[in-house]
Amino acid sequence: MAPMKWDELYAKRMLRMRRSAIRELLKVTRRPEVISFAGGLPAAELFPIPQVKEAVGQVLQSLGGKSLQYGETEGIPELREWVARNFSRNGAQISSENVLITTGAQQALDLAGRVFLNETDRAVVENPTYLALLSAWRPYVGEFLAVPSDENGMQVNALPEILKKRPKLIYVTPNFQNPQGTTLTRERREKLVALSREYDVGVLEDNPYGELRYNGQALPHLLEIEAAQGKSSPFPEHVLYSGTFSKVLMPGLRVGWVIAAPEVIDKLGMAKQAADLHTSTICQYTALELLRRGFLDEFVPILCKSYGQRRDLMLSALEKHVGSRAKWNRPEGGMFLLVTLPEKYDTAKLLPRALEQNVAYVPGEEFHFNGDGKNTMRLNFSNARPEQIEEGIRRLAAIL
Amino acid sequence: MAPMKWDELYAKRMLRMRRSAIRELLKVTRRPEVISFAGGLPAAELFPIPQVKEAVGQVLQSLGGKSLQYGETEGIPELREWVARNFSRNGAQISSENVLITTGAQQALDLAGRVFLNETDRAVVENPTYLALLSAWRPYVGEFLAVPSDENGMQVNALPEILKKRPKLIYVTPNFQNPQGTTLTRERREKLVALSREYDVGVLEDNPYGELRYNGQALPHLLEIEAAQGKSSPFPEHVLYSGTFSKVLMPGLRVGWVIAAPEVIDKLGMAKQAADLHTSTICQYTALELLRRGFLDEFVPILCKSYGQRRDLMLSALEKHVGSRAKWNRPEGGMFLLVTLPEKYDTAKLLPRALEQNVAYVPGEEFHFNGDGKNTMRLNFSNARPEQIEEGIRRLAAIL
Repeated sequence: MAPMKWDELYAKRMLRMRRSAIRELLKVTRRPEVISFAGGLPAAELFPIPQVKEAVGQVLQSLGGKSLQYGETEGIPELREWVARNFSRNGAQISSENVLITTGAQQALDLAGRVFLNETDRAVVENPTYLALLSAWRPYVGEFLAVPSDENGMQVNALPEILKKRPKLIYVTPNFQNPQGTTLTRERREKLVALSREYDVGVLEDNPYGELRYNGQALPHLLEIEAAQGKSSPFPEHVLYSGTFSKVLMPGLRVGWVIAAPEVIDKLGMAKQAADLHTSTICQYTALELLRRGFLDEFVPILCKSYGQRRDLMLSALEKHVGSRAKWNRPEGGMFLLVTLPEKYDTAKLLPRALEQNVAYVPGEEFHFNGDGKNTMRLNFSNARPEQIEEGIRRLAAIL
Repeated sequence: MAPMKWDELYAKRMLRMRRSAIRELLKVTRRPEVISFAGGLPAAELFPIPQVKEAVGQVLQSLGGKSLQYGETEGIPELREWVARNFSRNGAQISSENVLITTGAQQALDLAGRVFLNETDRAVVENPTYLALLSAWRPYVGEFLAVPSDENGMQVNALPEILKKRPKLIYVTPNFQNPQGTTLTRERREKLVALSREYDVGVLEDNPYGELRYNGQALPHLLEIEAAQGKSSPFPEHVLYSGTFSKVLMPGLRVGWVIAAPEVIDKLGMAKQAADLHTSTICQYTALELLRRGFLDEFVPILCKSYGQRRDLMLSALEKHVGSRAKWNRPEGGMFLLVTLPEKYDTAKLLPRALEQNVAYVPGEEFHFNGDGKNTMRLNFSNARPEQIEEGIRRLAAIL
């Protein structure tokens, strides 16, 4: 299609999209000899194949054609109700009208960008932040504003200065942030919600990993804190919450959800209808059937036990093989930790050597929108088998 | 979220999205006493539940966790290969690199809009055209340009004048257009491709209904015609083809695809990654398993027989109950026909009376981007049971 004059055709919208050279490099992680800490994948060997088979079979049996027919854009009513019930706690009152089922949480991020962000708008993100949030919002937003982070996540005290620039949205992952693995303290959560109310700015609370906690106390959702700070009607007012079954059931279903004020759900729903009409009905019904059978209560503890062990293995291996040559954090949950090397290192340049040693990671620079973080690397601990983790870290240490 | 100043928040992008009042009205079609010719639904009672159950079971059994894990944005390689093989005919040479798997064909339309259309751009559509194409492209495009249609679809002879305005894309459904049911002649197809080459403009060939032909000869895809007109390298150059399993398997899987030049697939893939990461792996593998079992060869003739009978029943009922009070066409396939009433009628205003009589249709105005077509209505003949069709048309005739 070269004769079609790409520069013209793709104009500014597409020129903002970038195919990462790193992503191409990381394709070699498909080779079985590579120990990959690069992806953000759950451990597929834990997926409960017989239970899924039984659940799909039950859905097809009892619902017949309905389970494979077109469905409502907003999602199947029973699943929206499940989400509403599950999140109506600690003072938060959620109804089906607050819920839109999405094609994975990624779609919730994309739809929020479509609906809220125009080319003259600003959005606040941590730097580093979730890579695919940057991809999703870059075509819509005018400018990203960085809020600094530390070992307790977003430095909320730095926000008032940033909020003077009148951004439209703040993106935050309060639990086990990707890539940093950090968790926002209760005080910061309360302050963040109070600021969103004071400055009248939306907060997208992205919580894909919240259930995967291996130690420490669970903290309230921003959604619950907004309800507790009260007085807002309709509720929720400033918080949009995005969740997913990708980490607690299986990502291949591509079923997520967003919780927001009914007027916001209405707009997101219109955007979703244009994007893909609706999320797979058979996948939604299968997730619902697993929920009805109480499968989460059984499966989440299995995941937490397994991923918690893998995290501990990785932390011990780092201690043993890397020691004082780098720093890293001890996430209380989720799937990632961030390793910080001395300033002289560039982890993007180091990656080909790591791949030669058959070990992979994602350079931290990828998660920054401005080229920072060159001396950091994100390690995933949920996907590699326990017996591979120490060996992988040993290989990594060897190239430092 | 009213305190968040909607007007500001939604700015121009969202103000262009409209929730149709008609869509709200049509929610009553869920009542069982309503005979609905409104939706674009296949007949769910024909869905082969036992075969789907067997195919999903087989996928889970043989692939295990892989079938529920994250997958590649471009789609599972075996399904991309199936599409490439299936469309490599009549001189068209398609490889996997030309194929992107999408979350239904709707996503292909949306992604094309994202990648190609900016606010200063124009796009050519028939008027009337597919409603959800208008929703998908409205937030991106500067202006729609209408090309007139007749009983043979798009009046391609009118294009040169329109192409002087340098649109970026032409959207066309060559087979059994929605809502008109028209099919583009071979001569028009050839002329359309030649014009796209001459004026260097992209053509999105949307073909959801092509396999559902009940009489007459199948005609070549624009994709094949571009290959035959030859000389273009890489191929395809100007044609983007979007297809789906929604009409020949089941829409609840949400599996479609787009075929285009590798550079275009690359861009669409980046946009897809931002939109939903990838299409459900279990749905893709289930579709693939059904294809491998040769299920299409068995099922498409069943659909054609059944939908063809329903079309004939509707045509006879129109003849009998409406007669000379209106005009309509005899589509050779697909799921829709368009009824044209005398100029004095407004089918949107008539709809509440129809719903009182427990019969539903979609007012033709919905498919026009400029308020035309007030005296037309779209009737779907694939979803209502055969025994309901005559009664539905009788009720419709009673209100005319």
